[in-house]
Amino acid sequence: MITFNDIGVGLGKAPLKKAVILLSGGLDSLTCLAKAQADGFSCYPLAFDYSQKHRAELHAAKHIAAHYAAPLKIFTVPALGQLGASALTDDQIDIPDYIGDGDIPVTYVPSRNIIFLAIAYSYAEVIGARDIFIGTSAVDYSGYPDCRPEFIKAFANMANLGTKAGVTGRPFNLHTPLIALSKVQTIALGTELGVDYSMSISCYRANNDGLACGSCDSCVLRKKGFSGAGFPDPTPYIEGVIV
Amino acid sequence: MITFNDIGVGLGKAPLKKAVILLSGGLDSLTCLAKAQADGFSCYPLAFDYSQKHRAELHAAKHIAAHYAAPLKIFTVPALGQLGASALTDDQIDIPDYIGDGDIPVTYVPSRNIIFLAIAYSYAEVIGARDIFIGTSAVDYSGYPDCRPEFIKAFANMANLGTKAGVTGRPFNLHTPLIALSKVQTIALGTELGVDYSMSISCYRANNDGLACGSCDSCVLRKKGFSGAGFPDPTPYIEGVIV
Repeated sequence: MITFNDIGVGLGKAPLKKAVILLSGGLDSLTCLAKAQADGFSCYPLAFDYSQKHRAELHAAKHIAAHYAAPLKIFTVPALGQLGASALTDDQIDIPDYIGDGDIPVTYVPSRNIIFLAIAYSYAEVIGARDIFIGTSAVDYSGYPDCRPEFIKAFANMANLGTKAGVTGRPFNLHTPLIALSKVQTIALGTELGVDYSMSISCYRANNDGLACGSCDSCVLRKKGFSGAGFPDPTPYIEGVIV
Repeated sequence: MITFNDIGVGLGKAPLKKAVILLSGGLDSLTCLAKAQADGFSCYPLAFDYSQKHRAELHAAKHIAAHYAAPLKIFTVPALGQLGASALTDDQIDIPDYIGDGDIPVTYVPSRNIIFLAIAYSYAEVIGARDIFIGTSAVDYSGYPDCRPEFIKAFANMANLGTKAGVTGRPFNLHTPLIALSKVQTIALGTELGVDYSMSISCYRANNDGLACGSCDSCVLRKKGFSGAGFPDPTPYIEGVIV
């Protein structure tokens, strides 16, 4: 039974502040949701169906949102599939194994975080949230330009100039609690918060059963995180993969 | 017959620079396309199907692109329809007559230009264009925050920090040739460039035959432009509307 007190109204308690959380279904966004909830926000996660090959992440996002009793909204953006030119959305481009040569990999999706954040702000504006959380990290990441602090800062500035809320005295706060954390530190933080990482899927080549390949960019970074943190890796891998 | 010379290659002539043009099908974006083409760009217009009620603008965009022999790309963004909360996309909110009280009207679509510009940049990155044109004006406009010069400048800065092209020494140029022009000046510029404004439709309530209501925000601004410029208004209005 929900009482007034449970939902933060009634006995003089202020209602929780709403926060919109970008939830891909991966390790970072799961940690980010757990952190926002631990910080006292009422969380509104959103995920994107952008014609990505790794559909398993959408199932993971649903699972995670249900676990945290947070209402998940899935927004559909076929435009990114129409654009193609990324290994994540284009059938003509295979998703490669981890290379780690410092170049931006072919899994880069042009303007992805700009589009996702813009929709997140739009959603925040509609539901009356002032806080947006994104789990980007500039430490252990794939070199995508739209994960770096310079970009995040410029986006936050731009969005407060381009939205009704921003220009009418109700600016948004863009939170990036993982921006300076390594994967090891993120996993340590999440574990402290009681996160069950078996719910998340990071793999770009995950199959329909949610099994990970173990060798793409995203798998390699995730595996390094668990081994560095000294925690058992709960990821279900495709049989035969040496982890 | 197309010769090498016509397409700018062959006799030592450099190929035209590609430009991506946001083409809503309205008066401003039509002028913007004409200007970019007159300035010597090879134009790649793009339009958006974002569940807007005024579908007539998509037909106008196709007509305009065909007229200028430019390949139109229509990107689909159902997310904006899913969000609703704007008179342009939400069946629960009627599109009002022009009010002009200085407030941001209910036709405001949260983050629309952020999302549209992000997709335009993405498209530019994919086709190898460095130039993007948008026909926003900060003079005769509906008060939308994402049409103001401060926003445009911040977006251009952010996007060069958040895209592969931007961070690898091939920054984008965001052109706003109409930003400081009144509607009268825009129509005068377009007329000088030979623009046929009967191809465009600005009305938020245009019917399926492409007839304009004559009384919404967008119609009123357009009508003032033609009367101020001293040119006949070629807009086909719904019968019975006094223009």
